[in-house]
Amino acid sequence: MGKTDWKAEAKALKKEIKGLKAPAVPAKAAKLVSPLAPARFPDLPVIRGVEFAAVEAGVRYKNRKDVMLIRLAPGTAMAGVFTRSTTRSACVRDCQAKIGLKNAEAAGAAIIVNSGNSNAFTGARGEESVAAITGGVAAALGVPATRVFSSSTGVIGEPLPHERITAAIPALQAALQEDAIAMAAQAMMTTDTFPKGASATIPGEGGMIHIAGIAKGSGMIAPDMATMLVYIFTDAKIPAASLQRIVSRNTDATFNSITVDSDTSTSDTLLVAATGLSDAAPLAGATLKAFEKALAGVMLDLAHQVIRDGEGATKFVEVNVTGAASDGDAHKVALAIANSPLVKTAIAGQDPNWGRIVAAIGKSGAEADRDRLTIRFGSILVAEKGWRNPKYQEEDGAAYMRNPELVISVDMGLGKGKRKVWTCDLTNRYIEINADYRS
Amino acid sequence: MGKTDWKAEAKALKKEIKGLKAPAVPAKAAKLVSPLAPARFPDLPVIRGVEFAAVEAGVRYKNRKDVMLIRLAPGTAMAGVFTRSTTRSACVRDCQAKIGLKNAEAAGAAIIVNSGNSNAFTGARGEESVAAITGGVAAALGVPATRVFSSSTGVIGEPLPHERITAAIPALQAALQEDAIAMAAQAMMTTDTFPKGASATIPGEGGMIHIAGIAKGSGMIAPDMATMLVYIFTDAKIPAASLQRIVSRNTDATFNSITVDSDTSTSDTLLVAATGLSDAAPLAGATLKAFEKALAGVMLDLAHQVIRDGEGATKFVEVNVTGAASDGDAHKVALAIANSPLVKTAIAGQDPNWGRIVAAIGKSGAEADRDRLTIRFGSILVAEKGWRNPKYQEEDGAAYMRNPELVISVDMGLGKGKRKVWTCDLTNRYIEINADYRS
Repeated sequence: MGKTDWKAEAKALKKEIKGLKAPAVPAKAAKLVSPLAPARFPDLPVIRGVEFAAVEAGVRYKNRKDVMLIRLAPGTAMAGVFTRSTTRSACVRDCQAKIGLKNAEAAGAAIIVNSGNSNAFTGARGEESVAAITGGVAAALGVPATRVFSSSTGVIGEPLPHERITAAIPALQAALQEDAIAMAAQAMMTTDTFPKGASATIPGEGGMIHIAGIAKGSGMIAPDMATMLVYIFTDAKIPAASLQRIVSRNTDATFNSITVDSDTSTSDTLLVAATGLSDAAPLAGATLKAFEKALAGVMLDLAHQVIRDGEGATKFVEVNVTGAASDGDAHKVALAIANSPLVKTAIAGQDPNWGRIVAAIGKSGAEADRDRLTIRFGSILVAEKGWRNPKYQEEDGAAYMRNPELVISVDMGLGKGKRKVWTCDLTNRYIEINADYRS
Repeated sequence: MGKTDWKAEAKALKKEIKGLKAPAVPAKAAKLVSPLAPARFPDLPVIRGVEFAAVEAGVRYKNRKDVMLIRLAPGTAMAGVFTRSTTRSACVRDCQAKIGLKNAEAAGAAIIVNSGNSNAFTGARGEESVAAITGGVAAALGVPATRVFSSSTGVIGEPLPHERITAAIPALQAALQEDAIAMAAQAMMTTDTFPKGASATIPGEGGMIHIAGIAKGSGMIAPDMATMLVYIFTDAKIPAASLQRIVSRNTDATFNSITVDSDTSTSDTLLVAATGLSDAAPLAGATLKAFEKALAGVMLDLAHQVIRDGEGATKFVEVNVTGAASDGDAHKVALAIANSPLVKTAIAGQDPNWGRIVAAIGKSGAEADRDRLTIRFGSILVAEKGWRNPKYQEEDGAAYMRNPELVISVDMGLGKGKRKVWTCDLTNRYIEINADYRS
């Protein structure tokens, strides 16, 4: 080993210090991967009858793929769930109108998604853009426009330069291939720090059934930024109506049970496509039940990944409410805790501040009796019967809060209502990302 | 100069880097006065029949007055409004039980307030503390315990060392004087960066009528920290029932129309006391109306001061919603905007990000029609008829956002419902204050 050049090292260290002393709010927030991210993008199974492509169309970002196309084979059943925002975007309204059409499976279908511009609050011009894009895809792929679904994510209120997207359709079409799902997940990222994917495989009668899904999202909504888009594919044989029922009834406990910042997007979209090209027989009986469970698992996995990529998140938090007067009350309490800025900042500061949880329960609007509440951090009994557990040690709570993954459990002691909700902490980084001027 | 010891320097630099890489949240956030604070505490008129005292009782803080006592003359009518939290504190429950008692004026009354400990979620012991404190004041001042109101603000879930407060009662009693209202406002501060006071004087029949009020609050709630307490005094002659009606009907447009962080306190308390000792005749007709207007003005002034002391606030923001389908819908929209972390961080970043306002309107739950919305920053027309105003210049919006006081106006274009709400921005400082560990 050579002799250390301490002078050079000191120089390098000084440079590092200069970097560390740079303004806390960078002109453009650097894109660091969330500390809660999975180690890598998972290997997702190929779903027969689903092809992906992504290209650089220059909608807003430079030097990255920003438009992706998905082609779905004839016979694909579609289901969807969308944001309830009254100011939802033109493409969401268009998807909603199309998803309910009956007996539309035979023609095949397509999904086209761009990042960089959400085409929300863009007046009549927004609808023209959707018509141009979905019409262009329909003409190129030979499917009816009523079977072309589109999503846009990015800045609100700016005209969508849809001609850049329609101009990219031939290149997208030429690039379509079955094993490019990871590229599609990448192309729709905005403030996301990692692409999100999940899958499941279950045995069916006569063959295996595969499910693969991708998602984007890191704040609930932010111009230039986040929104939640989810696309899940399966080769299962299932009619559209059954698929819609299964998707709808599993949305509440998955995508509707996560919150980064309580802000609802104008563009949130979940589309599930079943090509029916598995070797397995049509879903029925126990296989149908197993399929629902597997699909719900993929939905929950993707929902959790969105929280793990929450803007500025350093903690992944499960809020588990039991013993409420009703499931609805449990949901109210869980969301009140998960959305409380004071609870979320305490978690960021690793402070076992259970008083703020009591306050959040109190403001939730749910039935509550102070003297029946039980609060736990992980397995640590913090408070019960209207007061702090006499054996609770603040040091134990503080040690627990240093974990990157936390479970806050509240038992209301009133009934059988229960609900889990997932959230993240509220950090300076969230402020930096969202106070950063758009230009 | 001697030769530089680069090895030692490298070691020192490494240490510095370690420090710089330590959590951004300081161990104890320094207490700076809000940039939105008024220049000084106002001169408040003496209210006949109201005396104040404050002492150091060492409830939690050291070297500062932390308990204050107010004595109210016989004949004083009382009115009150309290937090609706289901986990509200023992003293709030006690005040609620006492405020409704009829024909109680003759005996006089008292208010005792401590900072440092909120006596919330302290089980049966919390009720014992309230009984000990109010009983001690009653015995000392010779008023019934049913006419002694108490408030506590500070950490939740810690036993209140009420013996320190009862031990201070003789000193408090000895110090009572009419012109010490400013000291009382100081004694109840927690994370407040300035004491809050407001007053009004109106002519009555035969003499002047005076109103003086004090408030504390800077986050909606935070253990160790903020809650909203407001005490208003007048020498007007008015029966308790009329006073209660006036106070109740003006609470919605004042204290219920401000939000720092959407978190409701377990301790919020508003008490209004009318001693009747003015030379003016009992309130009636035009004078009663003028009194209500003046009292509402004092309430709004104090409410605004709470926002001006919002934790970490750098902007005072009025959200003015008009044209909603109902007043209730207008309130929903105004609160959705005022509570949106994305709107509040954009304001912190001086970003005229009106897309986030559109998103907040969409999630509010109020009736909305994208194509009828009008959004203004001050007098700048930003968006109308479902899209950005073609004449709107981003530079104009950006220049406006640099003001410390902002008005965001939204016209829903649907009906006559309207509501104003006041809030502040969401900054790194809010995170620092609230992520700061309690110890």
